[in-house]
Amino acid sequence: MAEEKMTRDEALARQGYRHACHVMLYGDSSAKLFGKIPIKHIVLMQMRFDGLLGFPGGLVNPSEETLEAGLSRELHEEVGVAVRVGVDDHMSSCVSSSCPRLITHSYIKKMTEAELKEIERAAVASATDHGLEVLGMVRVPLYFLKKGGGLPYFLSHSFISNSRAQLLSALRHCRLLSQGELKEAVRQAEQMRRTHSYITLAQPHQSC
Amino acid sequence: MAEEKMTRDEALARQGYRHACHVMLYGDSSAKLFGKIPIKHIVLMQMRFDGLLGFPGGLVNPSEETLEAGLSRELHEEVGVAVRVGVDDHMSSCVSSSCPRLITHSYIKKMTEAELKEIERAAVASATDHGLEVLGMVRVPLYFLKKGGGLPYFLSHSFISNSRAQLLSALRHCRLLSQGELKEAVRQAEQMRRTHSYITLAQPHQSC
Repeated sequence: MAEEKMTRDEALARQGYRHACHVMLYGDSSAKLFGKIPIKHIVLMQMRFDGLLGFPGGLVNPSEETLEAGLSRELHEEVGVAVRVGVDDHMSSCVSSSCPRLITHSYIKKMTEAELKEIERAAVASATDHGLEVLGMVRVPLYFLKKGGGLPYFLSHSFISNSRAQLLSALRHCRLLSQGELKEAVRQAEQMRRTHSYITLAQPHQSC
Repeated sequence: MAEEKMTRDEALARQGYRHACHVMLYGDSSAKLFGKIPIKHIVLMQMRFDGLLGFPGGLVNPSEETLEAGLSRELHEEVGVAVRVGVDDHMSSCVSSSCPRLITHSYIKKMTEAELKEIERAAVASATDHGLEVLGMVRVPLYFLKKGGGLPYFLSHSFISNSRAQLLSALRHCRLLSQGELKEAVRQAEQMRRTHSYITLAQPHQSC
């Protein structure tokens, strides 16, 4: 479904809309899977209370706080540490195609590998939402394994609202993957989702 | 696809098969989501390196170690702490329907809420597989929210091999959910997977 995009200022000028802010926290990594497949980048998402995957964040009331202050507050509850998100981290705003009268604001923030690891630690050790609104943080695989493993399998999961589109858009925006790689991953994911309604996947040795 | 079930001893007597052992770590919880929806139970799964959901564990070579010693070794790598799994925790063994000449062994181990939280902490703080073979631990929602949120949404994700069937079987075995609840969750999950190939879900207020 096509979404109505607008600037941050245009979004804030709209009357009678609720606002939700979410952020993709990401960074570079030199780690190698099985000592040979470069991980390259870490991108954090979370398993939400409703069983869907999404980005950290939540509803913000701009009459009470700025979008970024609200997002930082939500982040603190969900990842257990203070993460300062600013106007410069704003990527896009659009009217939600799935929630009535909701504008979703998407942010991207680059961090170091050590900072991202600290967030993962705090998310289970000190976050007030752990085990409640958040069921766990996960890293998004950005590589491609044989038979679809990696990003295509990941994209075949179920995501909240437009968060899957936000992920793809952010990966393209940050040039973490090429347009061609993203298109191919989406194609494989959708084929998998269509054809494996009850999932029994043939796996290469290492995946079993 | 129907799976060929057997006892642990029958499985070990088979020649020319590889063996994979996985465990469902679970426990009771008194926590309430939004202060009102009882969580009741914690069940741990993980996001795997290939982008699929599954249980902790891996391949074991019974000529070198017992199934349980091998499973405990794999667990230590994946969850960062020693978890003793014994023969008494064995639930079922069956020939894999998706991997050639593989027997999968399923275990269940009940722990306290504090022990499960310690595993979640160690999984990101000290596990050698964190960020490599394991992209994150997640809790399985066992409750039902409006419009399918909770277990049905969770079951609509993509799982490795027979791990989704193992989850359902273990939930029934441990009486964490009734047969009727499980059937309804599966029905909703499969409908969702069939109809939302490109997922844009209409959500109630709290889910947006």
